[in-house]
Amino acid sequence: MNTIEQLSQTYDKKQPKLLEDYLTFLRFKSISADSEYREESQACADWLKAYLTQSGFQVEQWDTAGNPSLFASYHSSAKNAPTLLLYTHYDVQPIDPIELWESPPFEPLIKEGLVYARGAQDNKGQCFYTVAALKSLIEENGGLPIHIKLIIDGEEEIGSPGLTKLLQTKKEQLKADYVTIVDLGILGPDSPAVTLGCRGIITMDVIVQGTRGDLHSGSHGGVAFNPIHALIEILSKLRDPQGKVLVPGFYDDVAELSADERKLLALEFDQAQYKKEFGSEATGGEKQYTPFERAWLRPTLEINGIYGGYSGKGFKTVIPAVANAKISCRLVPNQVPSKIGQQVKQFIEKNTPSGVQVTVHVHEGGGPGIRTAPSSKIVQAFATAYGEVFKKPCQFILEGGSIPITNGLREASGGELAMMGFGLATDQIHAPNEHFSLDRLKQGFLTMARTIALLGENKS
Amino acid sequence: MNTIEQLSQTYDKKQPKLLEDYLTFLRFKSISADSEYREESQACADWLKAYLTQSGFQVEQWDTAGNPSLFASYHSSAKNAPTLLLYTHYDVQPIDPIELWESPPFEPLIKEGLVYARGAQDNKGQCFYTVAALKSLIEENGGLPIHIKLIIDGEEEIGSPGLTKLLQTKKEQLKADYVTIVDLGILGPDSPAVTLGCRGIITMDVIVQGTRGDLHSGSHGGVAFNPIHALIEILSKLRDPQGKVLVPGFYDDVAELSADERKLLALEFDQAQYKKEFGSEATGGEKQYTPFERAWLRPTLEINGIYGGYSGKGFKTVIPAVANAKISCRLVPNQVPSKIGQQVKQFIEKNTPSGVQVTVHVHEGGGPGIRTAPSSKIVQAFATAYGEVFKKPCQFILEGGSIPITNGLREASGGELAMMGFGLATDQIHAPNEHFSLDRLKQGFLTMARTIALLGENKS
Repeated sequence: MNTIEQLSQTYDKKQPKLLEDYLTFLRFKSISADSEYREESQACADWLKAYLTQSGFQVEQWDTAGNPSLFASYHSSAKNAPTLLLYTHYDVQPIDPIELWESPPFEPLIKEGLVYARGAQDNKGQCFYTVAALKSLIEENGGLPIHIKLIIDGEEEIGSPGLTKLLQTKKEQLKADYVTIVDLGILGPDSPAVTLGCRGIITMDVIVQGTRGDLHSGSHGGVAFNPIHALIEILSKLRDPQGKVLVPGFYDDVAELSADERKLLALEFDQAQYKKEFGSEATGGEKQYTPFERAWLRPTLEINGIYGGYSGKGFKTVIPAVANAKISCRLVPNQVPSKIGQQVKQFIEKNTPSGVQVTVHVHEGGGPGIRTAPSSKIVQAFATAYGEVFKKPCQFILEGGSIPITNGLREASGGELAMMGFGLATDQIHAPNEHFSLDRLKQGFLTMARTIALLGENKS
Repeated sequence: MNTIEQLSQTYDKKQPKLLEDYLTFLRFKSISADSEYREESQACADWLKAYLTQSGFQVEQWDTAGNPSLFASYHSSAKNAPTLLLYTHYDVQPIDPIELWESPPFEPLIKEGLVYARGAQDNKGQCFYTVAALKSLIEENGGLPIHIKLIIDGEEEIGSPGLTKLLQTKKEQLKADYVTIVDLGILGPDSPAVTLGCRGIITMDVIVQGTRGDLHSGSHGGVAFNPIHALIEILSKLRDPQGKVLVPGFYDDVAELSADERKLLALEFDQAQYKKEFGSEATGGEKQYTPFERAWLRPTLEINGIYGGYSGKGFKTVIPAVANAKISCRLVPNQVPSKIGQQVKQFIEKNTPSGVQVTVHVHEGGGPGIRTAPSSKIVQAFATAYGEVFKKPCQFILEGGSIPITNGLREASGGELAMMGFGLATDQIHAPNEHFSLDRLKQGFLTMARTIALLGENKS
């Protein structure tokens, strides 16, 4: 019997050991964006592998050119058991600006019910409650009521380039009735929600080269073409003051939401609360749309980094040789990542003033926007579990972020998709002082365990 | 007797020891922009102080809030001797981007007649041939034919804030008939030239603050206002595509050059040679002017640094909390630095979109544009010496760079101004792989020594 009450008692009993294991997991510096952390990432994968093996899983390491992925499976002895493929990741974002962290990012700190560490939420926290729920169900019940396949990606934060390539060759192993991405969130600590889709992404680097080397801005100022000026000229043409992206064709394929779909979504946005939480009103993006529409239903073009010239203390009167920008576009269903990448690249090349050279590297590893049906069995099972854990009806939401692997994973597995998780917008993921709450760690455990139980009960 | 031939023989005789001393001078990491180098800078000043004392100078250290200046004086026994006040500096620019240096910036390397080091030219090279010429004249002749006062600034590269404040209180000591700035250049290795003026400068930092902390560009993209976008919007309004600065009033006080002055100047510019030397054509600045006009007779607004968001390897999908820019304006005579600073600041504040906060810090330590008369005794003495050293007529040029202390020094000393030096545009000052040639080190020595001799001969 796996009621919420029983699961809760089990969790409380196991909590000290689970917490210890969670903190161990957080200590690995598994940053995928920087190859200097390759060994630490492998150590993290090794630890997970041992943990899952000990829990009763068959575990394979799937090697890539970068960090490996883990594939773990558990065969249920139940008759006619369906298969659920769960996806999480163990890699994390870089830690800069390091000076803004109040505690070291890889030395987890528990303070007032919150765990502070890089990856505390994204995605080690969510990965851990998933693994812990599976382990606990096996320990308490002697097995699982359904077949489980588990992928723990090592490169999600850089767009899953390795796993993406493996999906085709691993199709047979990945076959499942349901596939669930465990990397999402809820709108508030008391707002249970299943996510019905997320935006896609395509990223690129822009490099503007002026003279061969840096020059003195006195002797050469007004003579040499400063590539920072050229970069500003280019980037200023990408969006208008109303936040509309001016790249031709950018919005051509955007799928509009039906009235029914729109009705289902929780679209009310609290500006005052946003300002309180983040220190500024939600005035980014296309002014003609509401904030949730801008975050969920509209694509973006965002400059994630810009750098050129002197950035140190004091002043340096330099005309730099090079200026750079990093750009990402968040995409909605029907937009094709590679097509958008090429459109932006061509627009930049066309708008580069003469006297400088521009290079645009569109990165591999993007992914399209995703939507799934609220009526599917897997979405309904999660919605029921969330409702039982929170003792209130479950909402349906979308996610503005991207999990580029989702589409490929859905296609490779052939399963019905659900997206779930326990992140909050205030968790500071991808930023200094990332944190996750102990409450949500438990809620995640309960929701995951209860959903598996529900899928087992409904298996006929 | 101090003919060019005699001075040349003297230099050749002393060269090995002089070179050793020059390299010692270059090894001090006297970067003024970063207070971490304060001790190294003091050590550099101490070394200079000992060197000048040994040569027969009275030396005082003038303390400031930052690096000290040195004031050295030599009283001539000649009757009715005039006084020449010479200005150089011992501080240097920062060394980044360090990865582009082919040899360590503070370990001087001599290669094919060139000395590579930070400050090799600007201004330790020029400071050193000045000091060496004075030392040598005293050693060879038992004294100097004119009174010499020498200021060696420790903060020129950050706008001489300390020395500027001292000028008023040190007026009596600074009194001189002539004042000469030894921090300028020539148009080519075989083109002797005295500089008749330079541009002024005012610098500032621009800080755009969005949300309280960095945010994830998925969940918050299209919702939070990205301060990089706001910064680009602001900066793109500062100049038009023709390079004209759009800040109201920016050009109001610009002094036009008379036809006579224009005739005197060497205004021919070699685009092909520039492209060969610097890898790009001279297409910066106001398109309606020629390159030398843009460098010498027109003010600029230049972005010397821009930074915000992620700049590391790979990609980070962040919306940063803050984006920054460093701006300098080069000014021509009659433009008032503080007024221009305020105009730019107000323009930026007025053009900041709602949803972000902007702060503009206009720095102290700027200076106005400078012009001096080609007919003055001191300019003519240098022109004669240059002509004798190069055995061809001396040109008159202007300098696009700034020596902010010049105006204050001229006023405090009450002397006639000349500006001279042996820099070339290809010396990579303020950039990686800065260098100076041994040939020009000697030419500088000869020109300085010969000018002093000429001023002594004409003293009646």
